[in-house]
Amino acid sequence: MQVYDLIQKTIRKEKLSDSEIQFLIRGFTENQIPDYMMSAWLMAVRCQELSPEETAAMTLAIRDSGEILDFSEIPGVTVDKHSTGGIGDKTTLMIAPIVAACGGYVPKMSGRGLGFTGGTIDKLESIPGFSVNLSRQDFYRQVQKIGCAVIAQSGNLTPADKKIYALRNLTATVDSIPLISASIMSKKLALNADCILLDVKCGSGAFMKTRESAFALAESMKSTAIAHGKKCSAVITDMNAPLGMAVGNALEVREAISILRCEIHNPLAELVIDLSGRMLALSSSDSLQKCKYNALKALRSGKALEKFAEMIAAQGGDASVTDHPEKLPHSRASKILIADRSGYLASVHSEEVGLACLELGAGRTSANSQIDPGAGVIFLHQIGDEIRKNDILCEIHANSEALCEQAEKRLRAAIQITEMSVPERQLIDSVI
Amino acid sequence: MQVYDLIQKTIRKEKLSDSEIQFLIRGFTENQIPDYMMSAWLMAVRCQELSPEETAAMTLAIRDSGEILDFSEIPGVTVDKHSTGGIGDKTTLMIAPIVAACGGYVPKMSGRGLGFTGGTIDKLESIPGFSVNLSRQDFYRQVQKIGCAVIAQSGNLTPADKKIYALRNLTATVDSIPLISASIMSKKLALNADCILLDVKCGSGAFMKTRESAFALAESMKSTAIAHGKKCSAVITDMNAPLGMAVGNALEVREAISILRCEIHNPLAELVIDLSGRMLALSSSDSLQKCKYNALKALRSGKALEKFAEMIAAQGGDASVTDHPEKLPHSRASKILIADRSGYLASVHSEEVGLACLELGAGRTSANSQIDPGAGVIFLHQIGDEIRKNDILCEIHANSEALCEQAEKRLRAAIQITEMSVPERQLIDSVI
Repeated sequence: MQVYDLIQKTIRKEKLSDSEIQFLIRGFTENQIPDYMMSAWLMAVRCQELSPEETAAMTLAIRDSGEILDFSEIPGVTVDKHSTGGIGDKTTLMIAPIVAACGGYVPKMSGRGLGFTGGTIDKLESIPGFSVNLSRQDFYRQVQKIGCAVIAQSGNLTPADKKIYALRNLTATVDSIPLISASIMSKKLALNADCILLDVKCGSGAFMKTRESAFALAESMKSTAIAHGKKCSAVITDMNAPLGMAVGNALEVREAISILRCEIHNPLAELVIDLSGRMLALSSSDSLQKCKYNALKALRSGKALEKFAEMIAAQGGDASVTDHPEKLPHSRASKILIADRSGYLASVHSEEVGLACLELGAGRTSANSQIDPGAGVIFLHQIGDEIRKNDILCEIHANSEALCEQAEKRLRAAIQITEMSVPERQLIDSVI
Repeated sequence: MQVYDLIQKTIRKEKLSDSEIQFLIRGFTENQIPDYMMSAWLMAVRCQELSPEETAAMTLAIRDSGEILDFSEIPGVTVDKHSTGGIGDKTTLMIAPIVAACGGYVPKMSGRGLGFTGGTIDKLESIPGFSVNLSRQDFYRQVQKIGCAVIAQSGNLTPADKKIYALRNLTATVDSIPLISASIMSKKLALNADCILLDVKCGSGAFMKTRESAFALAESMKSTAIAHGKKCSAVITDMNAPLGMAVGNALEVREAISILRCEIHNPLAELVIDLSGRMLALSSSDSLQKCKYNALKALRSGKALEKFAEMIAAQGGDASVTDHPEKLPHSRASKILIADRSGYLASVHSEEVGLACLELGAGRTSANSQIDPGAGVIFLHQIGDEIRKNDILCEIHANSEALCEQAEKRLRAAIQITEMSVPERQLIDSVI
């Protein structure tokens, strides 16, 4: 088998066999195929695409480059969720305990934030004492005992993905549906839950800016999951505006706690019930309607809040934050942004909000930067709300007045108030 | 300027500026841009194409990586010719002396054969004593004095092309019209004649198998030449069957001498007159018709033969071969191939003939292989000729009976005799 011939095939849109794809991924990971050949093949893929079968084979080859987790001792069906990432996406903080409270098993590995998007791991770390680094045995044990655990990616999972991603990142081949799909799904297959719910974000604050690309990615990932024997469902959700009211690590944990305490009920809460229901439906024989009802009951009864506290305690965190969220970290300075006119809240540009939060200290500009867990923005209105002049639009939190003032201008430009009323925002675009 | 952004632009079919292209070529040649980035960009070009302006800029950047020749002391217009290569293409051996005999100046650098195609330099080296390595000064002087010189590529011409080609050859990006065009034309611009005639071969024995790709390459090369102030014309010529009757180095020199001696007049002779006329028309104010007539006169009068002898002598060769072609090298064995049926000579598959000659010892399987100058095949019929059973179809020459016998089967399969008569072959497909 010659790398040259395989590159040629991809250029000509001829399908590579499973063993040809394996040969490429393994050869590159084991340093037998040089970077310049792999980057040529990746660019050929970027320009000519891969078939669903080739994408599935690539995903498996990447998965097989490292450790594969084994939840076979858990006496039930495990269910994972993946969000492609966005601004203010704190759904995992609520979904994992809701599903666990309903009897599901949610083993979850999450990522840290980089650039304008946040990461679940950073959010959890804003809870005093919370540890995101569990040993494999502790991870298995916690999922078995309390039904959920959320930890950072660790160990020797998909080393091929790391090596391929580093090369893609230098050669402008990040932006390729099959390559994104294989990268995400290889990690999902390595985590190895029985069921996977995919939440593909779409809009200005997401990696997928258009519905077409979001659909294509969702379909590619779902077909790979199914090809490898997983139960899988995918939803496309809106990311043109931030998800929920808070953006910023501790602020988002606080919003999640408020929803789990049933103090607020907003479109984010509805999305969380919907996604939790879908995860339960994937992992049980109950109808989707029944599963959503169960999720709602778990929320309303306080069982989900209890489960969240249990999970925090199990991972070494201060579980009393669920009753006293004021114990979460605060930034030293804050500022309010006032509406300069009356009208309707038409849009909030989520990428701009993400960039403002990055400037406020809530995000990372590089993999090593420190974050301020208390920094961020709290919006006081939903898309569609009527706004009167001098209403507070949002609160800005950071460690200095200067940072707050700097972000104010960007935030004001990101918020659009119109004279015409606008329809309420629909978070779920489609289900695939 | 970031390589990443330039790759991204090419992926998106956004045009790179001249300075961006220069940055890429220079950076790669000077080892500042790593192989894996350049191979990604080359693959993006392979898949998404380059505009004529970008191709012209790339050509210039490659030219500028090395030496540029200077014929400014020659008291007339210099004219170069490029053939994209084929089987039995010995036109340069006749065209250079014909054009020189008509007062033109032909400074020519040619290549060696590799694989199934031959090279003009190997053909000339079959003439005893002929030297293809002249110093720059001797090259200039000979062109000035006798009007033509044909030498091997030498010196520090287009080092960027060598480095880029080596990478393309490993990463399946050879097969790209803008990259082929830039590679060829950078060498033509470095040789730096005032006028360039492009002979783009098309068919089974050529690199361009289809008319579409031959046209695209011809147009790309011509537009680059014109963008850089050269007078240029391009012809597409047929390479579905070998060009002329002989294939193999000394055998081809012999055929060229026969044509220059006016002993045979075949379609190849007509093509040679046509191409010589076009070169003269490019480099003078005379009409094409007048120029072709002048070329024909130079041939008929024996002046072109004299000029060929003069060129051989000037380059240290035994010029008496023009009167005594039997002095050219012979192979030790030969064999004739007999028609096993009557009919019409419908086709001779040129790539197969090229491969047969390679096996006979007339070509190189690798850059270092030795060739047998006497080996090859002489056909006795033109496409369209009526053939009777037991007619001799061709003579096979090699250094052993075994080699001749081995090639016989391949040659028989390459020759198609049909019951229906076939039209005469038209060597010139189109003029661009």
